[in-house]
This record gives sequence, structure tokens and C-alpha cells, in this order.
Amino acid sequence: MDSFHLFAVGKVKKDSGITTIEIYKEYADALLGLDQFSHVIVLYWFYKNDTPEKKNVLRVHPRHNMSNPLTGVFACHSPCRPNLIGLSVCKILFIEDNVIRIDSTDAFNDSPVLDLKSYIPSMDMIQDTFVPKWAIRNPQ
Amino acid sequence: MDSFHLFAVGKVKKDSGITTIEIYKEYADALLGLDQFSHVIVLYWFYKNDTPEKKNVLRVHPRHNMSNPLTGVFACHSPCRPNLIGLSVCKILFIEDNVIRIDSTDAFNDSPVLDLKSYIPSMDMIQDTFVPKWAIRNPQ
Repeated sequence: MDSFHLFAVGKVKKDSGITTIEIYKEYADALLGLDQFSHVIVLYWFYKNDTPEKKNVLRVHPRHNMSNPLTGVFACHSPCRPNLIGLSVCKILFIEDNVIRIDSTDAFNDSPVLDLKSYIPSMDMIQDTFVPKWAIRNPQ
Repeated sequence: MDSFHLFAVGKVKKDSGITTIEIYKEYADALLGLDQFSHVIVLYWFYKNDTPEKKNVLRVHPRHNMSNPLTGVFACHSPCRPNLIGLSVCKILFIEDNVIRIDSTDAFNDSPVLDLKSYIPSMDMIQDTFVPKWAIRNPQ
């Protein structure tokens, strides 16, 4: 009962420095109005980690940096986690039919896309935050 | 190949105005360090919409308001969408063992939790955004 069947609605494509989200034609209608937003939240599948071992990892040193403290995968954005959902907030450059050109994403080429949500500041942007020291530094 | 099996790692519980995320004991180790963050991104399952009809909805009037323009489900946070993943950014009040007390969430009581990610402003907070008029208004 507590398990769910999901499927890809598109793919991340990276080619010669150009990054796009290609939504499969049958879901293209779900893009109506997305061009009026500056950013989109992309939920994708960490497909390279789809092994029982990687899904059993519950603690990591964030950003593959052993000097960062051992941290639960729910307290970071590690690509190893029980359900391999990745989240990336991406700047929309333009949309043509079923293809969204974005500035960049950490997702690998060919990552299956599970869902898109427009980035809505009144819900998704939190101003008054705190984080531990390791998470202050920019990952780039 | 393009389909994925996910499972609940916990549940949203709402009782007498108190809202918690109860993570199942076997995943509690993944919470290490989350108490050092002010906010958490909760990914959950819109379980009340788990019907073929609701998953086939590709366009809605956002926020059940017919005066909002017809909009693709990828351009809003509608609870009807091909993969029924909900996303809520929640303020952490405190964490006790495997239970996270949060201020609030739109998720219904008993919603299965798929994943948690700490809210990391350098990745998740976008300052320079634009949105269409319907999305400016606060949903509350």
C-alpha cells in the first residue's frame, strides 16, 4: 500500500553546453503558461544510483567532502537516498513546443524527469533561514 | 525502463493543530543534522488523487479559482499531475528522534512522505524571479 509507481514525463538533455528539459509529447499540454515564470523546479531520477546499495545509504559527507560532517541524506541533497528523487531549481531561458531551454542543472544527461513545478516565491522562497556551516558555501 | 518504484519513508500527521513528519524508524538515521536547518523541503504523495482520472489532468485553473487562467500542471503546484508528487517547504520547530515538528504544510493528514531535503538557500532560494499575476497572490 505504501509504494508508488512513477514514470518519466521527459528527459534532461545536455549537449555542447546547451541544457534542455525535453517533455514527452503526450505531456506537452502540461507546460501551458510555464513561459510566464522565470524559474522551474525540476524533479528527476538519480538513475545512475539506482542500485540497492546506493538506496541504502542513509548518511554521507555532503558534497563528497570528507571534511564536511557526517550528515543524514534527508539533511542534504545527496544523490544517494531511499527514493532517488533529485531537485534542481533552474532558470528558464525559453520554451519551444515541448522543450525547455534552461541555464543549468546538476542532473546528468538523460536523467528521467518525474515532474516540473513553476517556482512560486510566495511558497518556495524562504528568506529567514539558517543552515550549518557546510551548507553556507556555494557548491560550485 | 522509464518507470520507477518508490515507497513511503514516513507520514505527515496532523492532530489538534500540531503538524509533524513521522519518519519510519528504519530511515531515522537519515535525519542526522537536519536539526541544524531552519527549513525542510518535504516531498509527499497526493494520495487522495491516486486515480487514473486525476493523473490524466494536464491543465487546471490554479488554486481552484476559475478566474485564474487555464494553466498546465507543470506551471503550477496543482495536486493533480501525472506523477502525484507534492512539494512543501516547511519551517522546522524541533526534532525528537524520528519525528519532526513543523509549523504547517498543505499536505493532508496521513500523506505518505517520499523524501526530505534540507532547504539550502544557495541552491533553493532564488531572488531574481518573475511570475504571472495569478501566482503573485498569497495562496492563504
